[in-house]
Amino acid sequence: MSTAKSRPLPRLVIEDVTPELDAGRYPVKRTLGDVVEVSANIFKDGHDLISGRLLCRGPGETEYREFPLDYDFNPDRWSAKFVADRLGVWQFAVEAWPDPFRTWVSDLKKRLGAGQDITVELLEGAALVRIAAKSRSGALAQRLVDAAKQLADASLGIAPRLELAYSAALTRDMDGPLIPEERSAYARVLSVVVEREIAKFGAWYELFPRSQAKEPGRHGTFADVEERFPELAALGFDVIYLPPIHPIGVSHRKGRNNAKTAQPGDVGSPWAIGSSEGGHDAVHPDLGTIADFDQMVRTAADFGLEIALDFALQCSPDHPWCKSHPDWFFVRQDGSIRYAENPPKKYEDIYPINFWCTDRDALWKACLELLLFWIGHGVKIFRVDNPHTKPLAFWEWVIAEVRQLHPDVVFLSESFTRPNRMNALAKLGFSQSYTYFTWKTSSQDLRDYVTTLTSTPLTEYYRPNFFANTPDILHEYLQTGGRAAFRIRLLLASTLVPTYGIYSGYELCENRTVAQGSEEYFNSEKYEIRQRNWNLFGNIKQDISKLNRIRRENPAFHSLFALTFLQTEYDQILAYLKSSPKTEGSPQGNDLVIVVNLDPHRMHECMIHVPLEKLGMGEDELFEVEDLLTGIRHTWRGRRNYVRLDPNERVGHVMRILRKH
Amino acid sequence: MSTAKSRPLPRLVIEDVTPELDAGRYPVKRTLGDVVEVSANIFKDGHDLISGRLLCRGPGETEYREFPLDYDFNPDRWSAKFVADRLGVWQFAVEAWPDPFRTWVSDLKKRLGAGQDITVELLEGAALVRIAAKSRSGALAQRLVDAAKQLADASLGIAPRLELAYSAALTRDMDGPLIPEERSAYARVLSVVVEREIAKFGAWYELFPRSQAKEPGRHGTFADVEERFPELAALGFDVIYLPPIHPIGVSHRKGRNNAKTAQPGDVGSPWAIGSSEGGHDAVHPDLGTIADFDQMVRTAADFGLEIALDFALQCSPDHPWCKSHPDWFFVRQDGSIRYAENPPKKYEDIYPINFWCTDRDALWKACLELLLFWIGHGVKIFRVDNPHTKPLAFWEWVIAEVRQLHPDVVFLSESFTRPNRMNALAKLGFSQSYTYFTWKTSSQDLRDYVTTLTSTPLTEYYRPNFFANTPDILHEYLQTGGRAAFRIRLLLASTLVPTYGIYSGYELCENRTVAQGSEEYFNSEKYEIRQRNWNLFGNIKQDISKLNRIRRENPAFHSLFALTFLQTEYDQILAYLKSSPKTEGSPQGNDLVIVVNLDPHRMHECMIHVPLEKLGMGEDELFEVEDLLTGIRHTWRGRRNYVRLDPNERVGHVMRILRKH
Repeated sequence: MSTAKSRPLPRLVIEDVTPELDAGRYPVKRTLGDVVEVSANIFKDGHDLISGRLLCRGPGETEYREFPLDYDFNPDRWSAKFVADRLGVWQFAVEAWPDPFRTWVSDLKKRLGAGQDITVELLEGAALVRIAAKSRSGALAQRLVDAAKQLADASLGIAPRLELAYSAALTRDMDGPLIPEERSAYARVLSVVVEREIAKFGAWYELFPRSQAKEPGRHGTFADVEERFPELAALGFDVIYLPPIHPIGVSHRKGRNNAKTAQPGDVGSPWAIGSSEGGHDAVHPDLGTIADFDQMVRTAADFGLEIALDFALQCSPDHPWCKSHPDWFFVRQDGSIRYAENPPKKYEDIYPINFWCTDRDALWKACLELLLFWIGHGVKIFRVDNPHTKPLAFWEWVIAEVRQLHPDVVFLSESFTRPNRMNALAKLGFSQSYTYFTWKTSSQDLRDYVTTLTSTPLTEYYRPNFFANTPDILHEYLQTGGRAAFRIRLLLASTLVPTYGIYSGYELCENRTVAQGSEEYFNSEKYEIRQRNWNLFGNIKQDISKLNRIRRENPAFHSLFALTFLQTEYDQILAYLKSSPKTEGSPQGNDLVIVVNLDPHRMHECMIHVPLEKLGMGEDELFEVEDLLTGIRHTWRGRRNYVRLDPNERVGHVMRILRKH
Repeated sequence: MSTAKSRPLPRLVIEDVTPELDAGRYPVKRTLGDVVEVSANIFKDGHDLISGRLLCRGPGETEYREFPLDYDFNPDRWSAKFVADRLGVWQFAVEAWPDPFRTWVSDLKKRLGAGQDITVELLEGAALVRIAAKSRSGALAQRLVDAAKQLADASLGIAPRLELAYSAALTRDMDGPLIPEERSAYARVLSVVVEREIAKFGAWYELFPRSQAKEPGRHGTFADVEERFPELAALGFDVIYLPPIHPIGVSHRKGRNNAKTAQPGDVGSPWAIGSSEGGHDAVHPDLGTIADFDQMVRTAADFGLEIALDFALQCSPDHPWCKSHPDWFFVRQDGSIRYAENPPKKYEDIYPINFWCTDRDALWKACLELLLFWIGHGVKIFRVDNPHTKPLAFWEWVIAEVRQLHPDVVFLSESFTRPNRMNALAKLGFSQSYTYFTWKTSSQDLRDYVTTLTSTPLTEYYRPNFFANTPDILHEYLQTGGRAAFRIRLLLASTLVPTYGIYSGYELCENRTVAQGSEEYFNSEKYEIRQRNWNLFGNIKQDISKLNRIRRENPAFHSLFALTFLQTEYDQILAYLKSSPKTEGSPQGNDLVIVVNLDPHRMHECMIHVPLEKLGMGEDELFEVEDLLTGIRHTWRGRRNYVRLDPNERVGHVMRILRKH
């Protein structure tokens, strides 16, 4: 039988601390300047008062900052907040203790109120102060010894001793546990990773640099990409994402439309990385030099744009590593390097890397060095290709390594796999993640999926990036829905979540696939250069620039949490409320009702239900709404309001709610 | 920068293992013979197959039992089960590893199916077997070396080598991680406490032994209690719970109806424990001797009844500890012992114990010894009085100590405080808990509260005991609702959850309170002897015996989880489905629809909605239901069915669903 003394025995219980992810295994995510709210269940036996504090420490800080915990009877939680004012990984802890001194003061007042004799009570208080003095030192200890003496000194009478008991000075001096053993701490020190705002909120544009030349047939360059910045900045984009810019392998190079054999002149897929001209730390010579790349990054910054690079850890058979480090690949028993396979399918133009090879340490460091190389060239955002095909442990390690040196670097996980794996990548460090958005086209699917993303524990770590299309995904909805379909999906992507993107050609409503039933583009840019007239008739650039401006101007679009789907009386009309709370900068708060006709072919009209209770409005109240897309104002009344959306004219509304007349 | 090698790097991720409570801080609860289902999210990068196992170890076992994990694509979980066939605390762990050998076999079949050359593949397989051999020993290692040789031996041709590759023997020999480093384990070893069935399912009856004498005015004895066993057993009770049976203090003894001063002859409250005649390990001399107590326990067992004792850790000023261990109490600065207070209220007849006193170790052991004393006298169930006024750490310690020696001992927490504290007591070890049931009388409150108890994480550790009344709680609903109210609450208590209880007098529909607005009984047994005519006209013993028989015969009532509230078309009619799955002993499963008229004053009729989808029945299907309370059968059809309940005749139905004609 173990003795009572042999185990640590907490005086109180601290449990269910939030935010916490997987028992503290992973940090939760916030962005710079966020107020981090920490709360906990804390309780003990009996009626004595409890005191406690939140401790937190920013990256590189050695001292913890302290904040007293406040109690909220309903819902029986203790909480405190801190401002995440530095980038990087923060730590926080919660501790609490019984507070017999505060209990004594509180009881003393009740006893006096009931006219009870408090002679002995004053001695009890003095005893508490004496006990506290023992574990304090210096001037504080001396003050406590003096106070105890005074509280116990009957010769002083009652009044001055009561004054001392109630004094702010003594209260302050008695702060903290009476004896150190009475302090209890939550089981785990937790962490928060604080990233730049762009990790949460931004508009992305994906383009293939080689397609950006103005002269027909010429291979585009970094300089050509720069030429597009004025327009892309004007359209309101924040991030320009480039597929791999490295030399492209020639062995087993794929031809146009993914033909098994390339024809002379075929440029190959940028994801078949590496040739005699270099690997992941080289630029394709036809795009320019590394100096040209640097210039492009600088120019982008001048336009308020950031360049995101693709980080695709796979090699063409011509990659320099195949010669310098064949042991970093899967070497077969016949000495050859294993190409990518999903038996019986073969992908002979790609060699997967063996992340668990014997020389793993050098390999992983080499991968880290690649990131540091591009960070050295001004790249602070990486879109990581198929991270779920590389070890989770590798990503956790490499992202942590980068973040320690460069907490401003953002990683986007391009993973389409089962939810558990996608979520795991987000937990272990990816700043944001691709999603199933492209495949969610029905009202019910959109509601279910977006609700999962915006109101479950996922919100602590999974930041969705809603790409409306990608070079790999041209959804049937876009293939068949015409221009209206592109406008609808743009409106959804840009207003449902804070971060979204399009792949170039979307603005021109390109919708031809390589084959019936396929989601692959016809004449896909993955295998050839495609030049475009960016001012083609029917383009939807006006929608893009309007939506990006509306997104920037309305704080409700900057938050993932603040979404509520509304009841509509017709299924094809989707409506949702985005709200941001009242703040100093936005004293009225910011409430927007977005209404979308999901049917690109037909006009629909119905009543939508405004959740008046969430807006603090009465059932019959008149209020004005302004469609930020048109500037037109309407007067709405009460809960049910009429909308009519003809996709030939407008596919939706972004109604800002203006307060009562 | 840390190096990749300096950290442990798991090959795969194991997360969200269930059942797990507070990151493994507390065990979940099961009862003897339960099948414990363990499941987990397990995944890795890429397409390779995964294998894994559940390890579990019963109390006192040194070896882990192993069970292979099975994968379920939907919902993407791995799972295995074990039977909890011993009482006490079990441990279990989940581990998994990439399985390159099974992957190789699976790919080999695909390659062959596509007519590909597999010459090198066989060498690859041989290499895998060779690697595995290195971390195996003895005959197994030799068999693997031989198998590798054979797989690589081109002279044998393809067929015999394929046969070997696919053989069950080699599959078995290759079980487990290829190399030990590839094994990953879940972050925590988890635990399950396995208790007796009575911890989960039972009917309790509370009686004051001193009230059980047949002759008017005589103080009842243990022998008188024995006289009641035949009837209580016939009524179907399992547990007879006795308030404290110890000597009662005389200092500041309370009089009848809680009068501040006792009159001569007043017997005092059994909870004012301790006098010159002894403390918690003595019996009140008027009840008999300890030998009489032992005899009562034995007689109870003969009737299939168990005695539960009250464990109330507080002392009257006359308790022997006040003299032998004054330091176990709160000693004031004037040398007196502090009585119980809630300033400015005083409770001078009770001395609270100072569980954090300097002599804590001896005090806690003395409390443990009290439990062991009564366990030595055959008591295996303790109803613990007000545990939330004693340290949580004390309960966790003392229950664990008892459980280690006597895993068949059951603890009931009598705590009415805020949910967090009540839940914490259940987590740290109490087998079952009092609840707010007595105060939940409306349809909505019952639905909300019972749903919380039966379909949230609480079910892993909180076993509710629905007392319909207690010596402290005579709810207004019972005060004003007449006999029907008692029948209604009995029906609810006994069918909503597996464990319920009544305090004697309930069966006689005693409903008089000491004062308007009070929940205290008039002439409460807490302060005086109350003898009753157990066959008083209007008693509801027939309801009790029927319900207890129905509960025993129908497995659906033995489970907390299996409850679904049904839609009813009138609010005062509450209906719920209790279901238990098909088992060997119950090949049809066990489905019961309980319907209760919550209004004790008026007849109500309405349609109730049977959840056909849960029962696997069609919309228009005819089916028979039998009211187990009356034996009457009805034919119901489809979803909506009619009920009519006049509280003067019957307050509800317990309809067993008989399968289709």
